[in-house]
Amino acid sequence: MEKVIVRLKKYSYPIIITSGLFNNLEVFKSLVCGDQVMIVTNDCISKLYLDILKTQLIKFGVKVDQIILPDGEKYKSLETLERVIYALLINNHGRDTVVIALGGGVIGDLAGFAASVYQRGIRFIQIPTTLLSQVDASIGGKTAVNHVLGKNMIGTFYQPSSVIIDIDCLKTLPEREFSAGLAEIIKYAIIFDSCFFNWLEDNLEELFLLKYKAISYCIRRCCELKSDVVVADEYERNDKRVLLNFGHTYGHAIEAYTGYDGSWLHGEAVSAGMMMAICSAIILKIFNKKDAVKVKKLLLRARLPIFGPKNMDKKDYLFYMMKDKKNISNKMRLVLPVSLGEAKIFSDITDDLILSSIQNCRSLFLF
Amino acid sequence: MEKVIVRLKKYSYPIIITSGLFNNLEVFKSLVCGDQVMIVTNDCISKLYLDILKTQLIKFGVKVDQIILPDGEKYKSLETLERVIYALLINNHGRDTVVIALGGGVIGDLAGFAASVYQRGIRFIQIPTTLLSQVDASIGGKTAVNHVLGKNMIGTFYQPSSVIIDIDCLKTLPEREFSAGLAEIIKYAIIFDSCFFNWLEDNLEELFLLKYKAISYCIRRCCELKSDVVVADEYERNDKRVLLNFGHTYGHAIEAYTGYDGSWLHGEAVSAGMMMAICSAIILKIFNKKDAVKVKKLLLRARLPIFGPKNMDKKDYLFYMMKDKKNISNKMRLVLPVSLGEAKIFSDITDDLILSSIQNCRSLFLF
Repeated sequence: MEKVIVRLKKYSYPIIITSGLFNNLEVFKSLVCGDQVMIVTNDCISKLYLDILKTQLIKFGVKVDQIILPDGEKYKSLETLERVIYALLINNHGRDTVVIALGGGVIGDLAGFAASVYQRGIRFIQIPTTLLSQVDASIGGKTAVNHVLGKNMIGTFYQPSSVIIDIDCLKTLPEREFSAGLAEIIKYAIIFDSCFFNWLEDNLEELFLLKYKAISYCIRRCCELKSDVVVADEYERNDKRVLLNFGHTYGHAIEAYTGYDGSWLHGEAVSAGMMMAICSAIILKIFNKKDAVKVKKLLLRARLPIFGPKNMDKKDYLFYMMKDKKNISNKMRLVLPVSLGEAKIFSDITDDLILSSIQNCRSLFLF
Repeated sequence: MEKVIVRLKKYSYPIIITSGLFNNLEVFKSLVCGDQVMIVTNDCISKLYLDILKTQLIKFGVKVDQIILPDGEKYKSLETLERVIYALLINNHGRDTVVIALGGGVIGDLAGFAASVYQRGIRFIQIPTTLLSQVDASIGGKTAVNHVLGKNMIGTFYQPSSVIIDIDCLKTLPEREFSAGLAEIIKYAIIFDSCFFNWLEDNLEELFLLKYKAISYCIRRCCELKSDVVVADEYERNDKRVLLNFGHTYGHAIEAYTGYDGSWLHGEAVSAGMMMAICSAIILKIFNKKDAVKVKKLLLRARLPIFGPKNMDKKDYLFYMMKDKKNISNKMRLVLPVSLGEAKIFSDITDDLILSSIQNCRSLFLF
């Protein structure tokens, strides 16, 4: 078992990385901190883990309720939030109840938002079941639902009381989703840690084989890197946390354009988005092409797309990027790498730079 | 102009109490802290103050958008929240925008909630226009919308960046709403400040006449008392803030029973609720009847009801009180006065005590 402590000013919480969680009574004991829990999950994950999680919790005398939501990004909405709130109220959950988010990023974001607003805030525990949510979404306290006009436009900063990661969940994860998780992992390496980038180059096959030593180290390293950022910038008020948006400004445009219909997973959009951001960095002459090729190769080995949707015009990117919430007062900002292991925020990005980044991305990397 | 500073750990914000606000350029200068604002108001208040507020803000070069909602507690809902979020997104409001809540408690709670969740939190300014919101709802950072199954069940703790109170707004306030505000003012006196209670007995007529000296002192004193509580207990985690619920557990039951249809204003329900709580305190022999009569007389002089709805059965109270969010794990708690100027929280309140408080309230105070 590995443990990373997120040391925030007001309080700290643990991220536990383990295997065999659902048969491990000891870990479950730490979950029990009230008389009541509400498990929020989706119809895919519930078939795999809900019964065993409930059985374990009931052993400790906890009253367990559940809400099973349809799977998919399009259910990360105010309407679904209302369903969770309804389930809490109709089952008489008081302020001392605990919401357990059992699922990927969608479930974590939605259940976390519900926990943050139900009776102005109740405890919640994350049990992320996808690689992406294990290394990113479940850490850092960002909760949200989507609006028709933009992704993650409604949400809060709200920290979980603990995050419990079971590596065994990855055994049932579709390969495409595993790759999507690798996109965020590679992102951490590019913006924060060149040694970790080298480690990924050397150990990618081990990760695909779900070797415990490699995968638990990899998840722990990502949790450490993200935790450092969150501690330095809990509410995204200084520039530290903004760095995590590397690849996301372009990537969100892809997701918005394709309407969150599942044709592009978040990690896939981030992967293509990172290559576009790298292209911007090359045009600005702040990043060298040799390292760009290293990134491209690693993304391809991770079975990730390096270009956006074929039918998406460069003007479509601009339209959705202008709407992106990271832009303060309509001034476009981008996170760009300056070397492998370091990224910076660049303000006053021109429309021209974006248009030519998208235009040149294919030709630059078609080699 | 009077000023009360709410000194929280993370930051402080001012409550400004003044008159002639809407013609006072100086006060408006302090409002301007971005390029964009979104005024959230209702169709009653907008007729009185929206044009002049907009004119003043535009003078400072601020881009002003507005959303005018229907008036009434029933619009404090997730559906209306969605409308506010939509207005912010469709008008391209970024993270540096400011929401201005222009109206009473409903507008303040709703606009504050919208500000707290829009892009995970933007600044907001309260301009409360009712006596109730000036002394209570606009201070302390509680935001919320209602759910069909319970009042204020969905919300956040989120502080405004300033509160600006214009006493002149009270000139256009219906008399019934003025009295409803007095209920919360009398509540502060009962639970925190016996001198203030005496002052209210001596100055009630001055308040009804809207004499500047009396009304500005009264509002300032309430803001100070509430501010002390909020500073000591920002997130309602210790018992200090719970004291503010005096009269509210019974009162919320009245509001829930009557379906927030306007037949009982919040302050009216609190007034009747305080008398029921005092009745509980008398039955428990912790409060003397002589002081109870003083409270009753002051509430009647303030033109407030001292009994609940005639057709509401004592079992109806119990049903809705069990649902009240201040009850931790179904154990009933009540805030009860122990003398004029002091209240305490009592746990393990029995159903019998509640039933006999309601049953005996009329006979105890029909003299």
